[in-house]
Amino acid sequence: MGSLGQRLNPYTKIARNLGVDAVGLVPGPNFTRAVRRPFMSHERPFLLVIQADGPPAALVPNLELRSWDLVGFEGAVFDWRDQDGYDAAFDALLVHLQIKSLAVEGQIMRVFVHHALKRAQPDLEIIDGEAAISGPRVIKTDDDIRALRAAIAISERALARVLNDVCLGQTEKEIEQALIQALFAEGADGQAFSPIVAAGDGSARPHAKARADYAVKAGDALLLDFGARKDGFCADITRTVFLDHVSDEGRQVYDTVLRANRKGLEVTRAGVTAHAIDDAVIGVLESSPYADRIRTKTGHGLGRDVHEAPYIMRGNHVVLEAGTVFTNEPGLYKIGDFGVRIEDDVLVTADGCDVLTTFPTDLQVLPCRNSSSRAS
Amino acid sequence: MGSLGQRLNPYTKIARNLGVDAVGLVPGPNFTRAVRRPFMSHERPFLLVIQADGPPAALVPNLELRSWDLVGFEGAVFDWRDQDGYDAAFDALLVHLQIKSLAVEGQIMRVFVHHALKRAQPDLEIIDGEAAISGPRVIKTDDDIRALRAAIAISERALARVLNDVCLGQTEKEIEQALIQALFAEGADGQAFSPIVAAGDGSARPHAKARADYAVKAGDALLLDFGARKDGFCADITRTVFLDHVSDEGRQVYDTVLRANRKGLEVTRAGVTAHAIDDAVIGVLESSPYADRIRTKTGHGLGRDVHEAPYIMRGNHVVLEAGTVFTNEPGLYKIGDFGVRIEDDVLVTADGCDVLTTFPTDLQVLPCRNSSSRAS
Repeated sequence: MGSLGQRLNPYTKIARNLGVDAVGLVPGPNFTRAVRRPFMSHERPFLLVIQADGPPAALVPNLELRSWDLVGFEGAVFDWRDQDGYDAAFDALLVHLQIKSLAVEGQIMRVFVHHALKRAQPDLEIIDGEAAISGPRVIKTDDDIRALRAAIAISERALARVLNDVCLGQTEKEIEQALIQALFAEGADGQAFSPIVAAGDGSARPHAKARADYAVKAGDALLLDFGARKDGFCADITRTVFLDHVSDEGRQVYDTVLRANRKGLEVTRAGVTAHAIDDAVIGVLESSPYADRIRTKTGHGLGRDVHEAPYIMRGNHVVLEAGTVFTNEPGLYKIGDFGVRIEDDVLVTADGCDVLTTFPTDLQVLPCRNSSSRAS
Repeated sequence: MGSLGQRLNPYTKIARNLGVDAVGLVPGPNFTRAVRRPFMSHERPFLLVIQADGPPAALVPNLELRSWDLVGFEGAVFDWRDQDGYDAAFDALLVHLQIKSLAVEGQIMRVFVHHALKRAQPDLEIIDGEAAISGPRVIKTDDDIRALRAAIAISERALARVLNDVCLGQTEKEIEQALIQALFAEGADGQAFSPIVAAGDGSARPHAKARADYAVKAGDALLLDFGARKDGFCADITRTVFLDHVSDEGRQVYDTVLRANRKGLEVTRAGVTAHAIDDAVIGVLESSPYADRIRTKTGHGLGRDVHEAPYIMRGNHVVLEAGTVFTNEPGLYKIGDFGVRIEDDVLVTADGCDVLTTFPTDLQVLPCRNSSSRAS
């Protein structure tokens, strides 16, 4: 996969394109992609600076120096110890660099690092270069796709396990715990995000949290939105099933969301804009009798981060290229009653798309036992 | 636990003490503690502003409005939809507030929110009020302590399971996966952080990551640093054991670290400074033959966040009050060979301390089977 120096080269070009003297990376998806090792980012600032013209430099917590030695970094390193604080290291770094402007990852860098940079050099111009800096991550490599497929396969095996075991009377929280255990049992390195397991009226809240006091009952919609993390990549899948039986309204809503989901797959190919996909997907929902239940956009990019560019929404006129992966997750939410969301992970190809998620999207009505009779 | 209004009151006082017009909270431990519901913070800004004089206000993603309705917030709410972007909502919020200065959580707020605030009001002074804003979290309530004990109990049961099953020839990664599964099987809501499972030379790297290509062998030190998350609170425990046998050096190093750990417990009581505890703990290590293997401070505060105030290190002259919880985690690290860390979670009391972790700290040499004979 080349040397660290080679992997940092794109940021030199990004700095030049942005018209800044340097790009600064902090621990997170871009940093990990570049240095090929995970580093923790807690209260200790950690900063990798790639200059438009000149060698890179890094500010590294002393605690991490030995691990840093393993990444093959060839620039100047400024370390600091907890007992001394980090201001002197920022001073030394910026005296060394002699830059006037720095583009940073606005979605990842925290304000305490921003302020440390400004204390060391008050006239340093710090711009939010998030979109450009994360740009190289949009087009996935073959290795990236392999890791995504692995994360998705783990997630789908876990989902199959959980749906097989769902009983009426179980709480959302119990189902969530079973899902998490199944993810790790199936080989997840971690969770891509805190899962959403929501039934009945909870399924109508797009970001619901599992309730310990809500037991699922016959006729409930049960929405599961979750994903494994594997080899640094995130799965993100949602399926909504009905327990025991489904109302006519539930069936019609499900069918509407599924048509929207399929429309998204139908219109996706390299050269289409994010706007056009969202317009087509949301268009299906808008032309249904349930237009007032729309609460979300179509989806977002997926990779090392579970939410990344490109955001699939109207107004985002970015053209999707082959190798982009995004979520196609239309939903309809009737507040206080029930919601349906169907989410696939989609790889854009030259002439269409490859749906990485393989779990069936047809309406499923689970024949459930009661939890009180689980042991029998 | 009172109304949301009552729970926001302390931030009014904090704003006044800091000499700013308002405090801004973003999703994270302080935000969750105040609103009593978890909210996700991804690419969408979410901001709760508590004024020194005047009612609070909030900037809320439209997607979260229904969940926000449940928190009982009585101030003005400015929402925004994905397709419109959030700049207009920041403009409206700041026109409404008419503030000149805002203290934020520098360790949590990201630069894109900082920049959105500055775009809306370029002359807004944004100061890093992290320490003051997180201050109310330092002294734990009885409910907090109960949640911490629950998280620790889960962690210790998981550790017992894993140590019972360790086999020579297992990889660090396999042991890590077993540990994660045990945490969830024992009732964790989540992991407090990505666990460290490190053997042999890996144990000498304070922030090592489990290796899939390192099989543990007789004589190895095996260091496990991990914790469950339960009801919003984090456990953080480290134990180091030896596999099959221990060298004289290993025994002496372990004994030194254990003496440092016990010294920390001995000197802890309300009224002592963080500096004094670290000085006593590190003093034991410094007066040993292994002073050159010191790489870390004594520890950090523990609660809703796994790393929070107070940081237990020399130079931090904050006086610890009863109800503070911190980690006491001295270690000695011989690069390329082995490391030992022993970490307890400690509750400061009026006349001493209550060690929340109960897993034995005496030297353990595990009698291990070979993994190839696991089935026999």
